[in-house]
Amino acid sequence: MKNKKHNKLKILNDPIYGFIQIPNTLIFDLIEHPYFQRLRRIAQMGFSNLVYPGANHTRFHHAIGCMHLMQKAVRVLRFKQVKISDEEENAIYIAILLHDIGHGAFSHALEHSIVNGISHEEISLKFMKKLNDEFNGKLDLAIEIFEGRYHRKFLCKLISSQLDIDRLDYLKRDSFYTGVTEGNISSDRLIAMMNVKDDELVIEGKGIYSVENFLIARRLMYWQVYLHKTGLVAENMLVNVLRRAKELAEKGVELYTSTSLGYFLYNKISQENFTIETLEMFSKLDDYDVMSAIKEWTNHSDKVLSLLSKMIVDRKLLRIEIQQDAFKESYLDKKLNKVSKKFDITSEESNYFVFSQQISNQAYSTNKPIYILNKKGKLMDIAKASDQLNLQALTNPVVKYFICYPK
Amino acid sequence: MKNKKHNKLKILNDPIYGFIQIPNTLIFDLIEHPYFQRLRRIAQMGFSNLVYPGANHTRFHHAIGCMHLMQKAVRVLRFKQVKISDEEENAIYIAILLHDIGHGAFSHALEHSIVNGISHEEISLKFMKKLNDEFNGKLDLAIEIFEGRYHRKFLCKLISSQLDIDRLDYLKRDSFYTGVTEGNISSDRLIAMMNVKDDELVIEGKGIYSVENFLIARRLMYWQVYLHKTGLVAENMLVNVLRRAKELAEKGVELYTSTSLGYFLYNKISQENFTIETLEMFSKLDDYDVMSAIKEWTNHSDKVLSLLSKMIVDRKLLRIEIQQDAFKESYLDKKLNKVSKKFDITSEESNYFVFSQQISNQAYSTNKPIYILNKKGKLMDIAKASDQLNLQALTNPVVKYFICYPK
Amino acid sequence: MKNKKHNKLKILNDPIYGFIQIPNTLIFDLIEHPYFQRLRRIAQMGFSNLVYPGANHTRFHHAIGCMHLMQKAVRVLRFKQVKISDEEENAIYIAILLHDIGHGAFSHALEHSIVNGISHEEISLKFMKKLNDEFNGKLDLAIEIFEGRYHRKFLCKLISSQLDIDRLDYLKRDSFYTGVTEGNISSDRLIAMMNVKDDELVIEGKGIYSVENFLIARRLMYWQVYLHKTGLVAENMLVNVLRRAKELAEKGVELYTSTSLGYFLYNKISQENFTIETLEMFSKLDDYDVMSAIKEWTNHSDKVLSLLSKMIVDRKLLRIEIQQDAFKESYLDKKLNKVSKKFDITSEESNYFVFSQQISNQAYSTNKPIYILNKKGKLMDIAKASDQLNLQALTNPVVKYFICYPK
Amino acid sequence: MKNKKHNKLKILNDPIYGFIQIPNTLIFDLIEHPYFQRLRRIAQMGFSNLVYPGANHTRFHHAIGCMHLMQKAVRVLRFKQVKISDEEENAIYIAILLHDIGHGAFSHALEHSIVNGISHEEISLKFMKKLNDEFNGKLDLAIEIFEGRYHRKFLCKLISSQLDIDRLDYLKRDSFYTGVTEGNISSDRLIAMMNVKDDELVIEGKGIYSVENFLIARRLMYWQVYLHKTGLVAENMLVNVLRRAKELAEKGVELYTSTSLGYFLYNKISQENFTIETLEMFSKLDDYDVMSAIKEWTNHSDKVLSLLSKMIVDRKLLRIEIQQDAFKESYLDKKLNKVSKKFDITSEESNYFVFSQQISNQAYSTNKPIYILNKKGKLMDIAKASDQLNLQALTNPVVKYFICYPK
Repeated sequence: MKNKKHNKLKILNDPIYGFIQIPNTLIFDLIEHPYFQRLRRIAQMGFSNLVYPGANHTRFHHAIGCMHLMQKAVRVLRFKQVKISDEEENAIYIAILLHDIGHGAFSHALEHSIVNGISHEEISLKFMKKLNDEFNGKLDLAIEIFEGRYHRKFLCKLISSQLDIDRLDYLKRDSFYTGVTEGNISSDRLIAMMNVKDDELVIEGKGIYSVENFLIARRLMYWQVYLHKTGLVAENMLVNVLRRAKELAEKGVELYTSTSLGYFLYNKISQENFTIETLEMFSKLDDYDVMSAIKEWTNHSDKVLSLLSKMIVDRKLLRIEIQQDAFKESYLDKKLNKVSKKFDITSEESNYFVFSQQISNQAYSTNKPIYILNKKGKLMDIAKASDQLNLQALTNPVVKYFICYPK
Repeated sequence: MKNKKHNKLKILNDPIYGFIQIPNTLIFDLIEHPYFQRLRRIAQMGFSNLVYPGANHTRFHHAIGCMHLMQKAVRVLRFKQVKISDEEENAIYIAILLHDIGHGAFSHALEHSIVNGISHEEISLKFMKKLNDEFNGKLDLAIEIFEGRYHRKFLCKLISSQLDIDRLDYLKRDSFYTGVTEGNISSDRLIAMMNVKDDELVIEGKGIYSVENFLIARRLMYWQVYLHKTGLVAENMLVNVLRRAKELAEKGVELYTSTSLGYFLYNKISQENFTIETLEMFSKLDDYDVMSAIKEWTNHSDKVLSLLSKMIVDRKLLRIEIQQDAFKESYLDKKLNKVSKKFDITSEESNYFVFSQQISNQAYSTNKPIYILNKKGKLMDIAKASDQLNLQALTNPVVKYFICYPK
Repeated sequence: MKNKKHNKLKILNDPIYGFIQIPNTLIFDLIEHPYFQRLRRIAQMGFSNLVYPGANHTRFHHAIGCMHLMQKAVRVLRFKQVKISDEEENAIYIAILLHDIGHGAFSHALEHSIVNGISHEEISLKFMKKLNDEFNGKLDLAIEIFEGRYHRKFLCKLISSQLDIDRLDYLKRDSFYTGVTEGNISSDRLIAMMNVKDDELVIEGKGIYSVENFLIARRLMYWQVYLHKTGLVAENMLVNVLRRAKELAEKGVELYTSTSLGYFLYNKISQENFTIETLEMFSKLDDYDVMSAIKEWTNHSDKVLSLLSKMIVDRKLLRIEIQQDAFKESYLDKKLNKVSKKFDITSEESNYFVFSQQISNQAYSTNKPIYILNKKGKLMDIAKASDQLNLQALTNPVVKYFICYPK
Repeated sequence: MKNKKHNKLKILNDPIYGFIQIPNTLIFDLIEHPYFQRLRRIAQMGFSNLVYPGANHTRFHHAIGCMHLMQKAVRVLRFKQVKISDEEENAIYIAILLHDIGHGAFSHALEHSIVNGISHEEISLKFMKKLNDEFNGKLDLAIEIFEGRYHRKFLCKLISSQLDIDRLDYLKRDSFYTGVTEGNISSDRLIAMMNVKDDELVIEGKGIYSVENFLIARRLMYWQVYLHKTGLVAENMLVNVLRRAKELAEKGVELYTSTSLGYFLYNKISQENFTIETLEMFSKLDDYDVMSAIKEWTNHSDKVLSLLSKMIVDRKLLRIEIQQDAFKESYLDKKLNKVSKKFDITSEESNYFVFSQQISNQAYSTNKPIYILNKKGKLMDIAKASDQLNLQALTNPVVKYFICYPK
């Protein structure tokens, strides 16, 4: 028995952090659970690997990495005499491990197509509650913290805030796997500078430049990676192909799909009717269902579906233009007409190939600020503590517009 | 026009090498070809990500990485006054880029299950010939070199030998993504030490320790990574689930599969009847077809198929034992009987869950040696040039035996 | 002969870039010259290793690294059809290799103490002219470029501008050796984005975020590393100990010094009387002369000299306070008085232990802007091209004040 | 007070490990001690930076790095239920921190020239005893462990054995700073595989390939780095220049030296008369004393001294030949004669410029083996546990011979 227990306390390799220790058997069992194993089959960055071929890392690894950084944070805070009970420690490990468990295939595409009306955070919560049942209430505190209801706010902030452990891992990880070295933040230093003051998670004064750098690096990652134009096209084409499939499904057209993907195509799922059965179906759905369906749809008789699918599979993506101002209606119409003729499809159908949207990124929000602990022991919003960088400017969301259309 | 050409000469990010330059438009077009894009959907290390969660890199990235190292090799050799014509240069870029294009889903599993009787090298060649047709004979020389027929042998050795560019990339890449840092070889130094003497690819004398290290690192990667016991189990279970599917298909049982996977399950494909149509079907087949089918098979009525599938998807793998000697027949029989009873299946079917095999690795072969160029300008087999390490011992294949069975 | 030539074209190891190739024999001979070898004995970051113990890299390695990056820049620009003649190529290699050859011991300390009135750039030029004599005028063009007189301005900008090769190496290198990972810029990407438009060195539009990141990283390195408070104290104490020594020397007090250090202590050197002999003496002077003298001075009879020396050697540094506003005269006086009593020294002598200064850093200057090449082929100052970051704010120098005094 | 204590528990940056935590105030105070600070001025790899320009790291950083790895080892072992008391923990931190404190300038050169008859380990012990006095016996246990007298042998083995923490840091560190990536061992994995069985430090069975790799990497580092021919020449010339200086000193010739270097040149120091005063003098002696003296000696009237010094300073090193067999007496004589004539020096003096020696390296010794813990819980010598690599062969010392002479 002891041996078995010992066996569960194993280590995992991480190219970024070296070895990651699984802290206890409950967490080991959560990791082993099929719900969590599913994350092995969901790419952290969706179709970004079409731009950055190294970016094939999974939600699974990200979640494990978060747990590792959280262990560091606990060590640092306890070293600074912040009291964290063993129960709280365990709860924040679980909360961070499972914070993304509700992510759908290709990370974000499903939310904007076939599983809409319910966010991945809400689904994460459903999974956590279901697991809590299976594990006899051992996730109670983790859920309380995940929902932000726990009275010790700094623990909630470690799970979700503008400088949470989630961001500390994903920025570092995405930078690592894409090879965009400028996005490389020093998670280690930021954690080493963490402290707690008046139940608020703070960064000590001398960490101010690291926080600035973190915000700027995140901004860079947004524009250079997450909103990279080729990735944007691919992501939107993915959304469109799933929307088209759902449209066809609703008309009763037969489609090659796995059982779980079919469930979400042929049923209208919303927050209201998201039952345990839905959750179970969702737990079977991953990148493989979606991509294998798209591959097969390349031969479907519906022209829109097959064309879009083929473009995705062969990486013959739509052309994209990005600019600071909205595109003129007339420009869009011209493109729509052209496509309608070229492919001999209705103007409504043309919208699957020609579309315009806005994208935006707010590098920093003063709503729930990142606090700097200054020398006098006072908390200051980083936007004010920074001597010059004018971080205030970063609170204005940058908005851009793009239009996609066939070459 | 010039602009378009310029656009093709772009760079790709690689977490390992930084930036990779695509050297010319022909190679750009080959990379863009759907045959090559398919490699984006084939994991370089198959199921090794079940052990090393970072190991999700693809055959696509490996092939691109090889091309990058080959550019370095050309620079080094030319710097040392080795004549390489522009045509030869281009040909070895193409040959190394396409050397693995015939790899099936999950890299090796298909060869041992549903596409047997023909090696991935042979399929690579078929792809190259087909592409040569499409590109009007521009791959002639690349094919000649790939087949080892070209009169300048050192160019063939760069593509295939015990110290070829393929190995220099995959050892480095696999070490990087698994996080097994000991496997990290110095591709750069080995390339810097390359030279050509009497049309033979050689390593200069002072590179001898780097070659030793390369051989030892490769050995380590074999036993610690490629033949890692958990990876072995998963790989063999994958082979078995495909074999079972093929067995059922041959009996006419209906199976959820994509068109291309179905083609290989429901037809007997061998070297003889591997037609252009077969190649086209093969070019559609990747990890997504296989994994999505296995996921769906978890609900199939055939007990063997569904059990194996479920084990794979939920990562509840068979137990494995490894030892130096073959397992006794009686031990195997005992396990078989137990499984037969436990699952209520025939003894023949039990073989899908209980099986024993041998694995072996020969760290170095003296057949086609790695040559060291000594101070006197003579070539020496590394096994003899090494002062003490007794590399001779490495020529004896290490053989181990494993047995798998349900827990 | 050919063999000897080949031998000179060797490669150097760099933990950052891997292998660095020496491009030709002239450059090999320059590197071998005692003037250049001296840089092996000058720490790139002065006393920063008292804060960051890994920061022991030398001016030698930095210069070699610059030459390596310049080779990359030439490759990139030529690939983009920018004409660079072989002569120009060689000249910018030499110019960048020698751009810092005039740096004194501990990089900056000498300029503020015993070799003042002449900048290290001016001394670099003197060295280059002397070498030009020795090498029969082969450095003519390099000097022209170094002085910014060459008609092709972009070549001069590669040597000296707000985004020159010097900065691309030292930020990366200093970040690497200090372990301050946030300072890690992507020299590779910045170089890959370089182009030339109307003889101006520009960064292509999509590199805009990398430039932003570069400026922010540089700013961070200034405040966190170059102006780190412990480093500041040490640097200023070093300046003070040398000033005291010079003061004593001028009074005829005997001091343990090497010949070359003695030369600069016992003579008044200025731009006017900086002769060839002075240059020769300067070429013998490095960190070892200074540090070994300080070590010996710990036992000197002059109290100021020995106290300061002892503090430096044993790393018992003065206390430092930093703030946004100037320190009050009265505060300084109080500290001076205290020291005067404590050490029983004159109030004038107390200034060696108690001093206040301002430090400042301007993250970006619009005087000679970094140009972004936008989509329409126009040049824009990065401060205007950046969509939001308000880089304009970075043009205001940040000024801080510090005071040092004994604990 | 608490604040002051907290201040001492700070972190240090390490480019290799990230952040290093100083575990307690006693260790902080030891690090602050001038004896330990001296290690900042001693290059870990002596003159290897003449070959590998990045190799300027110091004994100081190595010692700190060892302490960091030891903290990891303690965590791993305790996790595996190995009992280590707080006192023992502290003692092994101190023992590893101070294990090299007795190293002289340029690490090894002094031992072979002016401070001979006493090893650096013995001097380390003297320093530890002196510090123990100063710290009121708090180093008692550390000294007991350092001397190998403590009854729990595995703790002694962590400090000194064929797989001790010292080696785990220096191989990794030297590989890192030289850029010889093949020497990169996985200290993390080796530590993770550590365990204790019957009071013996062992490596768990699955770590066997990592141990093999460690031995091979160490072997590579010896031949490629530590015994690199250029480094060998420089090291021996350094020894010779010091020997010559001592010879002159013994004759009463005046030499420029610091007080501490002078002490060892003008006195005959041996194990017998190594007093507290000697220790104090030794504690002042570092690379700066030696190098600055050599620089000044370039102008000394003694031809041997000045020639050797000039060669070192300008890096115009002697030529070196290396081979498997001893050089013939006649060959040596020929070279000696030539030098004697060329420089117009006595034949005895010629020995400073022409000399032959043997070098050897034993990659592994079975005397005090590295133990592998096999599946059955038995200890096996790695040389026998390794399935094939024939590590036995590594127990034969490799011997080579070199000869140096002027070009």
